[in-house]
Amino acid sequence: MSLIGKEVLPFEAKAFKNGEFIDVTNEDLKGQWSVFCFYPADFSFVCPTELEDLQEQYAALKELGVEVYSVSTDTHFVHKGWHDSSEKISKITYAMIGDPSQTISRNFDVLDEETGLADRGTFIIDPDGVIQTVEINAGGIGRDASNLVNKVKAAQYVRQNPGEVCPAKWEEGGETLTPSLDLVGKI
Amino acid sequence: MSLIGKEVLPFEAKAFKNGEFIDVTNEDLKGQWSVFCFYPADFSFVCPTELEDLQEQYAALKELGVEVYSVSTDTHFVHKGWHDSSEKISKITYAMIGDPSQTISRNFDVLDEETGLADRGTFIIDPDGVIQTVEINAGGIGRDASNLVNKVKAAQYVRQNPGEVCPAKWEEGGETLTPSLDLVGKI
Repeated sequence: MSLIGKEVLPFEAKAFKNGEFIDVTNEDLKGQWSVFCFYPADFSFVCPTELEDLQEQYAALKELGVEVYSVSTDTHFVHKGWHDSSEKISKITYAMIGDPSQTISRNFDVLDEETGLADRGTFIIDPDGVIQTVEINAGGIGRDASNLVNKVKAAQYVRQNPGEVCPAKWEEGGETLTPSLDLVGKI
Repeated sequence: MSLIGKEVLPFEAKAFKNGEFIDVTNEDLKGQWSVFCFYPADFSFVCPTELEDLQEQYAALKELGVEVYSVSTDTHFVHKGWHDSSEKISKITYAMIGDPSQTISRNFDVLDEETGLADRGTFIIDPDGVIQTVEINAGGIGRDASNLVNKVKAAQYVRQNPGEVCPAKWEEGGETLTPSLDLVGKI
């Protein structure tokens, strides 16, 4: 079974955020939408371009009440070292979680057990800590964070409007569907 | 571990395609790129909008040498009945695989064991039958197939250009990266 509809399993971790080390646990995901963005390694190549790309969406996501976390199996110390030395990473203002115990990466089913690194997985998590979307790319294929805002809006709409669902390519203000006996076979 | 880098497990199934019932097995995936699009149910609501959306990308995907398959746990008989009666589904020209044994949905880790239906999962598979990308949305959130063509192009580029990788938001003709000792910490 996929992780859709599953609650994020317990974890405790350190993160680097805005010049400080902070604690993050699965409890922090309750009561607020979150995006988790896993990536293989600090001081690498595709990853900094993805984290910068995600940073460009951060303001729009925060406006929707979404908190953003990046995660790799590096330590929070390495995150700070990278933040200090990389032009792209120096722009990051969301929390950069260190997962050297590999607990979080394994809980999200994105740990490559052979390399000990996380796959390129992005997850949208609702205020109950339940996973609503999953997107994973192979190592050489950088992600595009620009569709995240739309996915979050659709997920939030469905949560706030029980009984309604969002068709393909739905955008805010667009038509939705209300599944019913009469609608069967009519679409 | 995620399914990234994993070979599609063996399956044999019937599909409805262009007015005929055809056989499809995992061997058909060898030697050609494929997209597998799982969805919960025929004669439903979000699903027809997604399959129509995918159909709109089919010509562009075929131009890239990609074959497209939709999959639900309905039978191939039901697919034909739906194709005959639904305005949106009547447009579908790619193969509609029936997976009543749930084998394929389970092999792709998108079978909801409680409902017996497949989650909204989209997979890009390379000519070795190996999964390169995964995207799964919760039931009420229709997918957007428009990013598939770009993802396929990136996956094909990486395969044809060993040693090079595609940064975030990469598009055909865009700059790529060649990971090396000298590039560490420079991005």
